[in-house]
Amino acid sequence: MIWTVYLSGEIHTDWREQIEAGAEAAGLPVEFTAPVTNHAASDAAGDMLGKPDVAFWRDHQSSKVNSIRTKTMLEQCDLAVIRFGDKYKQWNAAFDAGFCAAMGTPYITLHNDDIVHPLKEVDSAAMAWAQTPEQVVEVLKYVTATG
Amino acid sequence: MIWTVYLSGEIHTDWREQIEAGAEAAGLPVEFTAPVTNHAASDAAGDMLGKPDVAFWRDHQSSKVNSIRTKTMLEQCDLAVIRFGDKYKQWNAAFDAGFCAAMGTPYITLHNDDIVHPLKEVDSAAMAWAQTPEQVVEVLKYVTATG
Amino acid sequence: MIWTVYLSGEIHTDWREQIEAGAEAAGLPVEFTAPVTNHAASDAAGDMLGKPDVAFWRDHQSSKVNSIRTKTMLEQCDLAVIRFGDKYKQWNAAFDAGFCAAMGTPYITLHNDDIVHPLKEVDSAAMAWAQTPEQVVEVLKYVTATG
Amino acid sequence: MIWTVYLSGEIHTDWREQIEAGAEAAGLPVEFTAPVTNHAASDAAGDMLGKPDVAFWRDHQSSKVNSIRTKTMLEQCDLAVIRFGDKYKQWNAAFDAGFCAAMGTPYITLHNDDIVHPLKEVDSAAMAWAQTPEQVVEVLKYVTATG
Amino acid sequence: MIWTVYLSGEIHTDWREQIEAGAEAAGLPVEFTAPVTNHAASDAAGDMLGKPDVAFWRDHQSSKVNSIRTKTMLEQCDLAVIRFGDKYKQWNAAFDAGFCAAMGTPYITLHNDDIVHPLKEVDSAAMAWAQTPEQVVEVLKYVTATG
Amino acid sequence: MIWTVYLSGEIHTDWREQIEAGAEAAGLPVEFTAPVTNHAASDAAGDMLGKPDVAFWRDHQSSKVNSIRTKTMLEQCDLAVIRFGDKYKQWNAAFDAGFCAAMGTPYITLHNDDIVHPLKEVDSAAMAWAQTPEQVVEVLKYVTATG
Amino acid sequence: MIWTVYLSGEIHTDWREQIEAGAEAAGLPVEFTAPVTNHAASDAAGDMLGKPDVAFWRDHQSSKVNSIRTKTMLEQCDLAVIRFGDKYKQWNAAFDAGFCAAMGTPYITLHNDDIVHPLKEVDSAAMAWAQTPEQVVEVLKYVTATG
Amino acid sequence: MIWTVYLSGEIHTDWREQIEAGAEAAGLPVEFTAPVTNHAASDAAGDMLGKPDVAFWRDHQSSKVNSIRTKTMLEQCDLAVIRFGDKYKQWNAAFDAGFCAAMGTPYITLHNDDIVHPLKEVDSAAMAWAQTPEQVVEVLKYVTATG
Repeated sequence: MIWTVYLSGEIHTDWREQIEAGAEAAGLPVEFTAPVTNHAASDAAGDMLGKPDVAFWRDHQSSKVNSIRTKTMLEQCDLAVIRFGDKYKQWNAAFDAGFCAAMGTPYITLHNDDIVHPLKEVDSAAMAWAQTPEQVVEVLKYVTATG
Repeated sequence: MIWTVYLSGEIHTDWREQIEAGAEAAGLPVEFTAPVTNHAASDAAGDMLGKPDVAFWRDHQSSKVNSIRTKTMLEQCDLAVIRFGDKYKQWNAAFDAGFCAAMGTPYITLHNDDIVHPLKEVDSAAMAWAQTPEQVVEVLKYVTATG
Repeated sequence: MIWTVYLSGEIHTDWREQIEAGAEAAGLPVEFTAPVTNHAASDAAGDMLGKPDVAFWRDHQSSKVNSIRTKTMLEQCDLAVIRFGDKYKQWNAAFDAGFCAAMGTPYITLHNDDIVHPLKEVDSAAMAWAQTPEQVVEVLKYVTATG
Repeated sequence: MIWTVYLSGEIHTDWREQIEAGAEAAGLPVEFTAPVTNHAASDAAGDMLGKPDVAFWRDHQSSKVNSIRTKTMLEQCDLAVIRFGDKYKQWNAAFDAGFCAAMGTPYITLHNDDIVHPLKEVDSAAMAWAQTPEQVVEVLKYVTATG
Repeated sequence: MIWTVYLSGEIHTDWREQIEAGAEAAGLPVEFTAPVTNHAASDAAGDMLGKPDVAFWRDHQSSKVNSIRTKTMLEQCDLAVIRFGDKYKQWNAAFDAGFCAAMGTPYITLHNDDIVHPLKEVDSAAMAWAQTPEQVVEVLKYVTATG
Repeated sequence: MIWTVYLSGEIHTDWREQIEAGAEAAGLPVEFTAPVTNHAASDAAGDMLGKPDVAFWRDHQSSKVNSIRTKTMLEQCDLAVIRFGDKYKQWNAAFDAGFCAAMGTPYITLHNDDIVHPLKEVDSAAMAWAQTPEQVVEVLKYVTATG
Repeated sequence: MIWTVYLSGEIHTDWREQIEAGAEAAGLPVEFTAPVTNHAASDAAGDMLGKPDVAFWRDHQSSKVNSIRTKTMLEQCDLAVIRFGDKYKQWNAAFDAGFCAAMGTPYITLHNDDIVHPLKEVDSAAMAWAQTPEQVVEVLKYVTATG
Repeated sequence: MIWTVYLSGEIHTDWREQIEAGAEAAGLPVEFTAPVTNHAASDAAGDMLGKPDVAFWRDHQSSKVNSIRTKTMLEQCDLAVIRFGDKYKQWNAAFDAGFCAAMGTPYITLHNDDIVHPLKEVDSAAMAWAQTPEQVVEVLKYVTATG
């Protein structure tokens, strides 16, 4: 089988590229999906429909357009990797984790040791906690091994 | 019908008590559920099973025990109110929101205006955004009106 | 068993009251639920959260608050009666019918003979088409008969 | 991934062709499905089984045959676009919207500004409201972007 | 817990009354539901909506009205008992069995030894095959035993 | 899309071959699945596991082996055609219809006019009733039409 | 809320009574359900339907009758406690754990330290591992605390 | 159709290879999936994430990593074969059986005659009990026969 892996969360470092490169180097049977990771484009996702003056409604409209992509990809993936970085609130990453938990979709969290405590609910429903993209690639190797 | 409303999120202010008092004063047909809101007790929720030396596993064990309560109550509620306060990461609150979204359970977010942008994904899947407990009570009055 | 029957659709005539009176007169084991049927109140359902200047977003906000009530009641009812009257577009009534069809919830349509053709998709997924509230009461009598 | 997009609703203008042409011109990874859009053929969909004399039953029989196609396509699509035009009741379009809402399938509404108010329930459960086929194509571009 | 047991199938002998009497005599925590068992009333279930001239459509209309009751009760029961008698085709009984099988609702078949072979698919998905109402009561005693 | 159509029911006439030939002649995008239609082989489906002496258990064992095939194919089809012939009880056909009804899978019944009344429950949950294989092919043509 | 807790597994020691006594002493809002725990009665659960000569089919018939009770109670409980003792294979206990895992029902395992390794798959999907009935009672106290 | 068959359970004999060879020799339309069957590798499945000192948590971490693979494959298979051998507790095999039962996924058990009684709950929810890999291949031949 080909595994579809959704890469959720932080968009300011190259962790996605590292995982994709590692998977490709190992020849893993994996296809990756992800949200639109261009921050400005994501914030403006709904502007083609008319840009609301009020910030709340502009965010609302853009988030709904983004969710067409993200919710569909989350529902269709076999596994999600959810990254929490050093900056920003990243509530959308935790939201995706809760979505996976309710769907029964397994997910791996990827974050440093210093935020273990505030992420305890998110981690306890995860199937694994990784600290580096290399570890994620190792998990993918193991999980997708053929024969 | 009696509505079961789960009150998720921040545990350091009295927003739950305000909503409960408002609902009681109005005689609303509502029953409230909530996580254990004693911070220390929640962190120690699994210690009766043997307290692990490693912080990650202690958190893991406690979070799973907490989830027996929180996941069950989330699944059984008709509506959730999810509060984001001024402090802490509150990823568990965003996790609960994602869980509700996947379950199709309606939820109301309760937070100040200054965190509208980082909460845009959480808010766009919500049925309402309130800024005060009084507004939540007003929504409950409207939603549960009989005749 | 007590049957929960949701009364969806037109809010400008007294068809709900007729059905409720008929059911009460017959002593049927039925509890009725319904949306908020005060038109102005329904349009203003979200105004307590701050009334948006743009009509689309005011409607959006109010409709979401209304949906907390209507979606929950639709999901929890055993049977829905969906009324199409002479005036207005009544797309929300057809929306509720589609919602029931997807949920597998049986529903009865209530409308005059002259709109049979445009309602053919809605009617073909219904369990019955009634032309008068009296007929609905007769169906309820039959369906809920005990022994 | 290839996105399957169901085009529901109005059958008297060429909005479907415009969206399909736009998607093809942009090389989007999208496959479109749709109901039978020939009005006469759709009304006669069940006549091969024997044409009932009574209009209600002819409509009933044809609508059920149509629903084999439409319900299956709706259930299998990743996204629906639902068009409300200037004429006719179009209750079947609203019915499809309600069906999507209950299934958790995202949908985009496509209609003019003058029917925003009667469509408020349908729009509030949608992921986007577009006023032109070009806007729908823009949303599809954004949502299906690869890398 | 109180068990809800749906009694499906043959309506020309008193097997339902025997089971109900046996359960009452034993004081079992069981509530019984059943279709309308008056044959003429069942055939005329939809006539209050206008009696179609064509037999197929009269049957169609009445069966749909009946299904409001039977499908709801089947979906809500904890256990079904499905009786096949000596006469008639009783395809509705086999239909109910298939419905239960797809829902994961356990059912007991009740029929004589001479129709074991044609009922093999129905029986193989059942949790038990009984030949007499007394045996059904014995199963109910065992299944609902408290402490 | 390619439609998967399951052909359930009677195994003593060539109705399946007629439908398959008609679909092939019309170049329809349809793939057919079916139970094992060799009567003797079907009755002996479980004998390779050891043939039980008691007829009931031999039937039981064979029916369960058959159900691996039939239940899987039913769950995975887009549409079922369910045939009731002149002979035998054919409770398994009615069972399959009930299974489809509970799954929300559309099905077409195929039977003569003389058994309309005993099949009324099965027909009322069907999307169409056909009397000849040619009519089924016509429905398939309409339903699967592309553009 | 009243919590329904299913007590699955070993039937040769008084662990159920200890948990029930502890919950009663603490006044917990808990109702317990359990399989029939009389070993001989459980083995003979289907004998009232005719005792098969072949051991496999007698076991088969009795297990199906037992499953009417156990599957229903498992599906309806809020939480399961699954006990693995010192003797016997106890595959039914592990079967119940897998059933809970697939249903999303939280469960607590109860077993000694010396079988941690062979139970690792069962434990990793559990919400807690307890070694004594007293610990289970402590978890129940925490989980069901009101206010 | 191509059948996906998951081979669960005992990892110390070559039963998987026998079934795969038999299926290949017969040219069956079957694809096999399986857990990682290297015992040491399976026990160390989570060690790349940091090997916990406490045996329970090492098992816990490894089992969760394994479950990413096994739960996904179980959910996606059409049929499972679950093998119980002569050694070890094999609670994970029974766990998988319970998981299948709750999912409605058909499974075949494969074990010797001497453990029929302790496996009665597992066998009664199975679609077949085989004693040899050859019998499993025969069932696969029958179930997947084309035309």
